[in-house]
Amino acid sequence: MGNSFGSLFKISSWGESHGGGIGVVIDGCPPRLPLNEDDVQPFLDRRRPGQSKITTPRDENDRVEIISGLFEGMTLGTPLAMLVRNKDARPQAYDEMKSKFRPSHADYTYQKKYGHRNHEGGGRSSARETIARVAAGAIAQKILGMEQVSISTYVERIHDIQAPNLKDIPSLNEIEASPTRCPDPETASLMEARVLEAKKNGDSVGGSVVCRVNGLPVGWGSPVFDRLEADLAKAMLSLPATKGFEIGSGFQGTFLKGSEHNDLFENMGGEIRTTTNLSGGVQGGISNGEELYFRVAFKPTATVLKHQQTVDDEGKNTELIGRGRHDPCVLPRAVPIVEAMTALVLIDHRMRHHAQCESFPFQG
Amino acid sequence: MGNSFGSLFKISSWGESHGGGIGVVIDGCPPRLPLNEDDVQPFLDRRRPGQSKITTPRDENDRVEIISGLFEGMTLGTPLAMLVRNKDARPQAYDEMKSKFRPSHADYTYQKKYGHRNHEGGGRSSARETIARVAAGAIAQKILGMEQVSISTYVERIHDIQAPNLKDIPSLNEIEASPTRCPDPETASLMEARVLEAKKNGDSVGGSVVCRVNGLPVGWGSPVFDRLEADLAKAMLSLPATKGFEIGSGFQGTFLKGSEHNDLFENMGGEIRTTTNLSGGVQGGISNGEELYFRVAFKPTATVLKHQQTVDDEGKNTELIGRGRHDPCVLPRAVPIVEAMTALVLIDHRMRHHAQCESFPFQG
Amino acid sequence: MGNSFGSLFKISSWGESHGGGIGVVIDGCPPRLPLNEDDVQPFLDRRRPGQSKITTPRDENDRVEIISGLFEGMTLGTPLAMLVRNKDARPQAYDEMKSKFRPSHADYTYQKKYGHRNHEGGGRSSARETIARVAAGAIAQKILGMEQVSISTYVERIHDIQAPNLKDIPSLNEIEASPTRCPDPETASLMEARVLEAKKNGDSVGGSVVCRVNGLPVGWGSPVFDRLEADLAKAMLSLPATKGFEIGSGFQGTFLKGSEHNDLFENMGGEIRTTTNLSGGVQGGISNGEELYFRVAFKPTATVLKHQQTVDDEGKNTELIGRGRHDPCVLPRAVPIVEAMTALVLIDHRMRHHAQCESFPFQG
Amino acid sequence: MGNSFGSLFKISSWGESHGGGIGVVIDGCPPRLPLNEDDVQPFLDRRRPGQSKITTPRDENDRVEIISGLFEGMTLGTPLAMLVRNKDARPQAYDEMKSKFRPSHADYTYQKKYGHRNHEGGGRSSARETIARVAAGAIAQKILGMEQVSISTYVERIHDIQAPNLKDIPSLNEIEASPTRCPDPETASLMEARVLEAKKNGDSVGGSVVCRVNGLPVGWGSPVFDRLEADLAKAMLSLPATKGFEIGSGFQGTFLKGSEHNDLFENMGGEIRTTTNLSGGVQGGISNGEELYFRVAFKPTATVLKHQQTVDDEGKNTELIGRGRHDPCVLPRAVPIVEAMTALVLIDHRMRHHAQCESFPFQG
Repeated sequence: MGNSFGSLFKISSWGESHGGGIGVVIDGCPPRLPLNEDDVQPFLDRRRPGQSKITTPRDENDRVEIISGLFEGMTLGTPLAMLVRNKDARPQAYDEMKSKFRPSHADYTYQKKYGHRNHEGGGRSSARETIARVAAGAIAQKILGMEQVSISTYVERIHDIQAPNLKDIPSLNEIEASPTRCPDPETASLMEARVLEAKKNGDSVGGSVVCRVNGLPVGWGSPVFDRLEADLAKAMLSLPATKGFEIGSGFQGTFLKGSEHNDLFENMGGEIRTTTNLSGGVQGGISNGEELYFRVAFKPTATVLKHQQTVDDEGKNTELIGRGRHDPCVLPRAVPIVEAMTALVLIDHRMRHHAQCESFPFQG
Repeated sequence: MGNSFGSLFKISSWGESHGGGIGVVIDGCPPRLPLNEDDVQPFLDRRRPGQSKITTPRDENDRVEIISGLFEGMTLGTPLAMLVRNKDARPQAYDEMKSKFRPSHADYTYQKKYGHRNHEGGGRSSARETIARVAAGAIAQKILGMEQVSISTYVERIHDIQAPNLKDIPSLNEIEASPTRCPDPETASLMEARVLEAKKNGDSVGGSVVCRVNGLPVGWGSPVFDRLEADLAKAMLSLPATKGFEIGSGFQGTFLKGSEHNDLFENMGGEIRTTTNLSGGVQGGISNGEELYFRVAFKPTATVLKHQQTVDDEGKNTELIGRGRHDPCVLPRAVPIVEAMTALVLIDHRMRHHAQCESFPFQG
Repeated sequence: MGNSFGSLFKISSWGESHGGGIGVVIDGCPPRLPLNEDDVQPFLDRRRPGQSKITTPRDENDRVEIISGLFEGMTLGTPLAMLVRNKDARPQAYDEMKSKFRPSHADYTYQKKYGHRNHEGGGRSSARETIARVAAGAIAQKILGMEQVSISTYVERIHDIQAPNLKDIPSLNEIEASPTRCPDPETASLMEARVLEAKKNGDSVGGSVVCRVNGLPVGWGSPVFDRLEADLAKAMLSLPATKGFEIGSGFQGTFLKGSEHNDLFENMGGEIRTTTNLSGGVQGGISNGEELYFRVAFKPTATVLKHQQTVDDEGKNTELIGRGRHDPCVLPRAVPIVEAMTALVLIDHRMRHHAQCESFPFQG
Repeated sequence: MGNSFGSLFKISSWGESHGGGIGVVIDGCPPRLPLNEDDVQPFLDRRRPGQSKITTPRDENDRVEIISGLFEGMTLGTPLAMLVRNKDARPQAYDEMKSKFRPSHADYTYQKKYGHRNHEGGGRSSARETIARVAAGAIAQKILGMEQVSISTYVERIHDIQAPNLKDIPSLNEIEASPTRCPDPETASLMEARVLEAKKNGDSVGGSVVCRVNGLPVGWGSPVFDRLEADLAKAMLSLPATKGFEIGSGFQGTFLKGSEHNDLFENMGGEIRTTTNLSGGVQGGISNGEELYFRVAFKPTATVLKHQQTVDDEGKNTELIGRGRHDPCVLPRAVPIVEAMTALVLIDHRMRHHAQCESFPFQG
């Protein structure tokens, strides 16, 4: 359980770090969407390991195969299945982990929950699972893009190196200019140095990612439990290594008074807009037409190349040296994943909104 | 859509601020649980308006009626329906809101999404809807309590008045000692003054709530999308006025290095524990037996008794004076609501865990 | 669990035969639908007991209250809750059933499953629960009617008295002309006599109901698991006392050869139609624009006023005399219930179809 | 949508007749189940084409690959994905179907619903999709078998050749002794001749399948919408070519009176049993410990090798000659599919029952 996401554009993810591969099925993809593997591959390329010197050297080209749901270049409306085979697996690198639990990884909790686990590369708990999300998200993003909804995601802080606030939304090119995916060049180079330093020391660093969505119409999202921000929060906290989520003014906004925090409405040239946007683009769980923006906290990678105290599967105290390839900082590779999850949340709410509020004659 | 929560202990919430009432149906409540209205009422009393001078004076006694699912003092296993009638409604107080959109409320987004809304007291977007959550959560908490899982929730900060970190979990009595629900007496009285000051000025303040869960066994939660923290994040961001969620070390933890952040395992007298708990009680989305703790940000109440610029439903710029009864600070009343949502997330994962991992003979 | 139906127009049903009442919540009802209690009450009146001398004399007027989701005569798009209070309950009539299990009722299975039951009138297993379905179905039918989809349901057979095949769809008036709800007057009077005879003997009879839907557009329904006929079969077999379902040619059609059974396509004046309709209006689980028709088998009422062998809750062999008010034949009252469930299935598939296949620009 | 089944043991099916292959993901499979491909392959072998002279000659060996969810011979509890590649596809055989709609197939409805379809072999509407169900059902059956629940399915009638009622449940060997899967040898040889005759004439025949489940404990199933028989009815009507479902006494039982139809309870040597079983093993939607049995109607295969009138995708009247490989009778191959769907329904209800009714201390 827990391996599906969405209600109308529903994805089911499967696969382990070291095994046959990673796959995803989308049930509910609209028919007649022009599509082929080239729409998906670039997103996986942004996520894949080995793309720069600040990411893990594991060499996976992560070629996606669309096995079903597509015919003569258009989606069929029936399930779209995608598969990425695992290639550069080195299960023997994980022999020590067979019996020893890595600190702050899921080895111990999986073992206790299921009584059995695939210890190679973390098995199902590996971030390699996010391939499924990115592949599905690529298709959601394609559809959203056709409706002028654009999602811009970038690294805002690594460790204590923080980019200045960006008034304008950076372009994809600006974001991709640095391997850190921070669009501010000066900050980016400081960040890169910090990551390399951590890497050299066998250590790791965390930080925060910002996501900004523009072009959202008013009305997406649901009241009560499935508020847009609630589904986004779930989407983000479902990502490996995330520890926090805030939307709009977030934690900082709670230091303001109501009179300072409220976003006043104003008719601006015929359009109802707000003069400020501390709400972050949602009110009552529903998009209000302003920029939707939120921030996600990623902890420092749990894998460090140091001696660490732990216990083994017989409960004996022991020691473990982190080995294997790893990312000294997950933030850059997290960017396309955050983007993908955002797209999946949005497409689902779009479809729900249309089904209930825009398809009946009396709603004219 | 969006008015149900949970998969096995599933609740469906309904009702508006001013109308027949607020209700909830629980489908999946275990049979044979000893229960009556007295198990639920105290939780609603902690949530209800008018309980102290720092909450809204709206006078609702919020008496719950259990209409179905109960027989001779025990649950039947079939749907448990609860109803709280609205009493002290003053719809006329909202006449101005019929055509004017209150800033940072959901009036505008509901109007645009649905093309029709109940403007009285915010209708469905009113926090009065949380009655449904608290009533259902009370039952979840009763069951969890029977399994030694205890949830402690309290106000940690109002505006910029922050309580010291509490090593020990405060008792319910300590929390309830102040109308602020901050268990540190000194901080509590400062907070109270701050809220009253805001009230006097027709303004409002926000802050943060902390939730700490003890007694959780190892193994609750699911991998990938339904991680315990993901479902908690969704639960919290589904609450009115929330802007952020963080678990364990949260945003602050991202300033640490991996070597500083990892929670080392140790066999402590036969039990596998971690020497620190920056993870916040979960690893890979699954409880690890340590204290589960998280923090929620609540913005300052949007209703302020001041002149505010806005637009009306014809798109004309206008002004609005907040009127009606309101809470100058939602934090104290948010405490039982956070608790309820936490209980609902936990009971659901408990049932899922048992169904899959603890009921088959080969799982011995 | 098991008390919700539908995915986009989702209903949650609750309540027992003798207790506070029966209720239903609809989540997903489209906003801006003109509605009031008068749209629902006539459907409940067709279902209610005591409506004729061939139904149970239990005197319930079953007045519906719409408690939420409605404002100034239009739906809000948020949950629509309806409540019917129980009135003429005579729990003492069921004293004997407290310890004795009625044959072919659910007393025994509920007791064993849940370890606790409300024995009064069958509790949750009572057909009184179908009030929830009829109330929700009334709203679905109103919407479908606005889209020219009409559902006609009638009794075709009681015991061995079978109506001739009706080429034309009977009007509601023709169906309602007889308390049997068989639109063929001659057959109806024979049926009525048969039911009264069974009643006089303290016995009961069963039969079959036919449902015919016209005006369905091509394209509603889903492939694989959620075929239209699959969801209809589930809907029907979820009704108390049903033992069978067949669509189109049904069981009889399996005596034909493929060459006899196929429905040939023909362009009839610009419209693609089939020359026969053994398929019953669906192909591959999706409506094909022809009349959708199916048949449901209802067993004879389990309550008979005779001595019957049974066991008590201590497992001792004993005897029971059926008492209490009951229907000697459920068929007439089943008609509006079958209609309601059909409407619920159809509205859900309509919304799903629009969400996926008719709302995107590239589907033009 | 519509490609998932089950709530706790949830399967997602994907793939088309001619394309990459057919696959299925199981989310919710219990961990620690000993498993490998050999547990699944025999079930697929019973379903596969080309297994006898009365089935289609399409030559697919349908080898299953378990790609995820398995490690060192035991299930992990995380998603179990299985893939069967398509081999002997002859898309060119379907060229005529590219523009012409085959009568009583889903070509027309898919085209109208989705605006695009894979015409090769029926694409997603092909019965080849049932590979996914059989593969998943094999695992469900393995688990149920470990709990002494056994499912026996066989062909009872082909065209008008009907087997006598079998008091004893036939063994798998007896069923498999004939390619017809009718366990009565005399009837089986008549059936075989009838199928071959139809085949010779380019025609097809239908019939009925019976499924009998033994060893079910009391208490599986849910009230109201998810009755055991409701979920079974849905499961069966979701199969290609099915037109009817009846449980227990079915349509015939509606010719009896209540006094004849009721199943009387009796304490038989300490066990509560019923003296007859017209209910078919369920009461109020919940298993009562008696044999669960039901019957499914399969229409004659729509593909016949004859000239048939139809229309093309421009709406012009035309003619079509059925070509390609096909089954003159689907019944024999339907047997393992009915079995699989039954197992999937049962395992899901078992898990739900345990989660709600058997895991809490107060249910002792």
